[in-house]
Amino acid sequence: MTDPVRPGRSVERAIVRYHDGAARYATDAVVTEEPLELRLAAGESVRPLAVTMRTPGNDLELAAGFAFSEGIIGAADELSGVSYCIDPNVDVEQRYNIVTIALRTDDLPDTSRFERHFTTNSACGVCGKANLDALRDAGTQPLDDDIRVAMPILLALPDAMRNAQRVFEATGALHAAALFASDGSLLALREDVGRHNAVDKLVGWALANDRLPLSHCIMLVSGRASYEILQKAAVARIPIVCAISAPSSLAIDLARAFNVTLVGFMRGTKANVYAGEQRILQEDRGPLSAQ
Amino acid sequence: MTDPVRPGRSVERAIVRYHDGAARYATDAVVTEEPLELRLAAGESVRPLAVTMRTPGNDLELAAGFAFSEGIIGAADELSGVSYCIDPNVDVEQRYNIVTIALRTDDLPDTSRFERHFTTNSACGVCGKANLDALRDAGTQPLDDDIRVAMPILLALPDAMRNAQRVFEATGALHAAALFASDGSLLALREDVGRHNAVDKLVGWALANDRLPLSHCIMLVSGRASYEILQKAAVARIPIVCAISAPSSLAIDLARAFNVTLVGFMRGTKANVYAGEQRILQEDRGPLSAQ
Repeated sequence: MTDPVRPGRSVERAIVRYHDGAARYATDAVVTEEPLELRLAAGESVRPLAVTMRTPGNDLELAAGFAFSEGIIGAADELSGVSYCIDPNVDVEQRYNIVTIALRTDDLPDTSRFERHFTTNSACGVCGKANLDALRDAGTQPLDDDIRVAMPILLALPDAMRNAQRVFEATGALHAAALFASDGSLLALREDVGRHNAVDKLVGWALANDRLPLSHCIMLVSGRASYEILQKAAVARIPIVCAISAPSSLAIDLARAFNVTLVGFMRGTKANVYAGEQRILQEDRGPLSAQ
Repeated sequence: MTDPVRPGRSVERAIVRYHDGAARYATDAVVTEEPLELRLAAGESVRPLAVTMRTPGNDLELAAGFAFSEGIIGAADELSGVSYCIDPNVDVEQRYNIVTIALRTDDLPDTSRFERHFTTNSACGVCGKANLDALRDAGTQPLDDDIRVAMPILLALPDAMRNAQRVFEATGALHAAALFASDGSLLALREDVGRHNAVDKLVGWALANDRLPLSHCIMLVSGRASYEILQKAAVARIPIVCAISAPSSLAIDLARAFNVTLVGFMRGTKANVYAGEQRILQEDRGPLSAQ
C-alpha cells in the first residue's frame, strides 16, 4: 500500500556520529517502534484484547498469529476477518496501529487472562511448573512427530537467516524469526523489535497460507530463546526451535515437557542441544541420543 | 538467604554439546526464568498488579522499581513494605515468585491501565505520539539538568559493565543495566532475562538507597534501547542513557521530547548520539552541538 500515513519498518533520524574523537552530523535509519492495539470482535461486540509495541509491517499476520498462539482461535476458519481500523472517528495516524480480529462466533470468548498484564494466571500458581501445567490444561499435547534433521543443516541456518535480513543491515535493531523446511530451505522470515512479535507474524503467515500445524518445520530466532518463544512453538507444533544465543531455564523445561527439540548457542560449527536430541542426526552417524 | 526452595539466578541442565561433528553429553549453566507476580496492598485490600517473567534475584528492588517507574508511587516513603509472600496457603515453590508492594494509603490506587496487557491506554490514542502525551500527562517533565560528560568516559562504560557481569560469563543469556556516576564509576549493576526488569531493579536499588532522582547518573543497557527503557529513565530523571546496540524510533522520539541524552551503537571508539548531544563533550573541545 502507498498510504503516506502508514508507518514504515524504519525511519530516518538526524544523529551525531562520533568516531575516534571526531563528531559529525549524519542521518541514520532506525527501526520503527509503534504501539499496535489488537481488538477482538464477534457479532455486534468489540473488545480491546492487548497492546504490543511492534515494528509496523505484517500487522495482520501478527494479529492472527497472536490469536492462534494464545489459543483464542484454533484454525483460520474461525476468523471472519482481520483488518486495520477504518473507523472515520479514529485519527488517521492511528488507523494503522489498530487491528481488529473478527471471529465467526456470535459472542466474544472469555479473555480475562489478558487483563493481567501477562498470560500467567495466579489461579493455577505462580511458578514455572504452573506455566507448563496451564499450557497442558489449554490442550497443548507433547509433539509426537518423527522428523529427523542432520546437525549440519541446522548449523547453516543462521547464515541463511542473516542473508535474508535486509532490514537488519539498515537499522541493526531488529529481531528476526524464520521458518525453514527440514531440508534447510527458507519458508518465511519476519522481523520486529520484539522477538515474540516476529514469531507471531510467522505463525500468522502459516495460518493465512494453510500451513498449520508446522510439524515439518524448523524455526530459528535471533538472540535468546525464552519461555514465550517455546510456548508459541509448541502451540504451532514446531518440532525444532533454534536460537542464536542461549535459552532460559523455563524455555528448556517447556521444550522437554512438550518434546520440542531446542538448539542454542549456534556459533559456526558449534551448538548446544538442550532438549529433544533424538531429532538431531550427527552427519551420517544417526541421532545423538543413540550413541 | 539459604532457603533451598529459593530459585537462583542460574541452574544446571544436561545438554548435548556439538562441536565440529562430534557430540558429547555435558552440563551447562542456564539463566533462570520464572514468573514473578506483583501484588499491591493498601489497608485491608490486596490486588494482583502484574506478572512478569524474570530472573530471580533483587526481586524486592524489581517490585519497588516497577511501582516507581509506572507512577504508582513517587517516593520511597509511600511504601510501608515490599516483601515475599509468606502466606502458609501458598505452595512453598511459589513463595519467592510473589512479591507484595504495601502502600501507606488506606485505599488501593486505580491501576486499571495494567489490565490492558501493556501500559498504553486507548483513551489517549494508539500511536507513538500518544505514548509521549500520556507520559507528559502523568506528570513527567523534560529534564533540565546541566550535566556534561566527555565521550571517552561513555565509550569506556561497555567494558566496565562487561567486567562486572560475572553471571553473563556463566550463562551468556542475561541482559544487564548499570548505573554510573558522571565520572564513569560504577554505582550499581543488575541483570535479568528481561531488559526492562534489569532497569526496574536499578530504579528499585536507587529508591531503597535514597538516590532518586538519578539526575547525575548515566545508565547503560546491554543490547537495544526501546521506548520502555527510555520511559523508565525519564521517570527516574536519568539524563544520559547509553545502549550497546541501536535504539528504536520511539525511544529516540521520547529522548528528544524529554531532553534525555541517548547514545547507541557503542563499538570501541565509535558511537551514535541520537538525542541530547549538548551533554556530550568531545574530549577537550566542548559539546558536540556547539561546533
